[in-house]
Amino acid sequence: MTDNFFEKTLAAREISQIPGMLEFDIPVHGDNRGWFKENFQKEKMMPLGFPESFFAEEKLQNNVSFSRKNVLRGLHAEPWDKYISVADGGSVLGAWVDLREGENFGHVYQTVIDASKGIFVPRGVANGFQVLSDTVSYSYLVNDYWALELKPKYAFVNYADPTLGIKWEDVENAEVSEADKNHPLLKDVKALKADEL
Amino acid sequence: MTDNFFEKTLAAREISQIPGMLEFDIPVHGDNRGWFKENFQKEKMMPLGFPESFFAEEKLQNNVSFSRKNVLRGLHAEPWDKYISVADGGSVLGAWVDLREGENFGHVYQTVIDASKGIFVPRGVANGFQVLSDTVSYSYLVNDYWALELKPKYAFVNYADPTLGIKWEDVENAEVSEADKNHPLLKDVKALKADEL
Ligand SMILES: Cc1cn([C@H]2C[C@H](O)[C@@H](COP(=O)(O)OP(=O)(O)O[C@H]3OC[C@@H](O)[C@H](O)[C@H]3O)O2)c(=O)[nH]c1=O
Ligand SMILES: Cc1cn([C@H]2C[C@H](O)[C@@H](COP(=O)(O)OP(=O)(O)O[C@H]3OC[C@@H](O)[C@H](O)[C@H]3O)O2)c(=O)[nH]c1=O
Repeated sequence: MTDNFFEKTLAAREISQIPGMLEFDIPVHGDNRGWFKENFQKEKMMPLGFPESFFAEEKLQNNVSFSRKNVLRGLHAEPWDKYISVADGGSVLGAWVDLREGENFGHVYQTVIDASKGIFVPRGVANGFQVLSDTVSYSYLVNDYWALELKPKYAFVNYADPTLGIKWEDVENAEVSEADKNHPLLKDVKALKADEL
Repeated sequence: MTDNFFEKTLAAREISQIPGMLEFDIPVHGDNRGWFKENFQKEKMMPLGFPESFFAEEKLQNNVSFSRKNVLRGLHAEPWDKYISVADGGSVLGAWVDLREGENFGHVYQTVIDASKGIFVPRGVANGFQVLSDTVSYSYLVNDYWALELKPKYAFVNYADPTLGIKWEDVENAEVSEADKNHPLLKDVKALKADEL
């Protein structure tokens, strides 16, 4: 948990490094039982900038991954938008790399997220995280459907590329997937054109 | 976790006691990092019976509660549909009571759910759960928006009403909210009419 975990005011900030990215403060209400949060609330979050386009095609998927400490997943830029969050008492170091063609290509943002934050990641931006707590439940909404046969077409960048400048913790000992070890360095990534997103 | 936690085939079953309720088997994929699941996937789950009407008004909220062992939340029948799930390695004893007018009024269903199950609860059916694991992250989608000032209008039934016949664990020592202690017994609940849902 971050220092002020409970009772933040719902708010959104634009991430200047990566246009279209939004960081939300999520109010978490604690009591004798634990806590409760409206993790996503369309009516309250759209006026703060959550894009209506997220819902344009009426597709919806909610993914949950559960990971142990030091697990690192990413960096993945599948062709859909993501609204990501932590669903328990854990925390992750989130990192994002803009892979869209243009002046922001290669720009990076990183921040620690716990259940009191939500991050909107526009399509074309690679997403990844490393687990800081003993375990973490990581939950996200996406607006298009994954398929194994399309995986070769999805865009990725290698988490360990030093030119990204991401400050992972002890990255040599990170627990990763074979696929994630083998993604290209930024210099070998083909920037994503608007019509590919 | 239940005995067969990983790699179930996505499937849906109707709950005969409570019309409109559905219990989904969710495939959970384990690897060196932990696990991953498509907790909700509209395109795959609608053909299995997930109602299209869930999306009719284009409202969407994702709630997450985090609770300690023995916490009991419920039984709540707010005027919206719910798709409920567990988002971590924990488990809960879920219980549902039909509060809709008609021959199924008062009918109960209960089952243990972990991350490999998803439950669709139609509006008019009261929802509740008791935490069986040390902690649990409980995540659900709803299709209308809660408001504190409307809470007196929402329908509830008392979890401790013995006439329900719910087999809670050690219900005397359950950790509950003040509000939940004071909900009416089933005999005092006004059955919900179709036009109130
Ligand atoms: C993304 C995805 C995966 N899977 C399956 C395939 C594997 O059996 C298992 C794990 O898949 P990975 O591609 O290894 O997932 P992961 O490395 O965790 O990446 C996912 O989580 C982090 C996110 O950054 C990323 O977008 C997303 O692909 O889940 C699905 O069944 N459906 C999916 O939507
Ligand atoms: C349901 C809800 C609650 N809240 C706030 C009010 C309280 O500060 C806090 C907890 O609210 P409770 O009504 O005590 O929630 P809880 O008893 O956990 O019930 C919820 O989880 C279990 C579900 O069965 C139930 O539908 C839902 O109301 O969260 C919100 O801000 N938004 C909401 O949508």
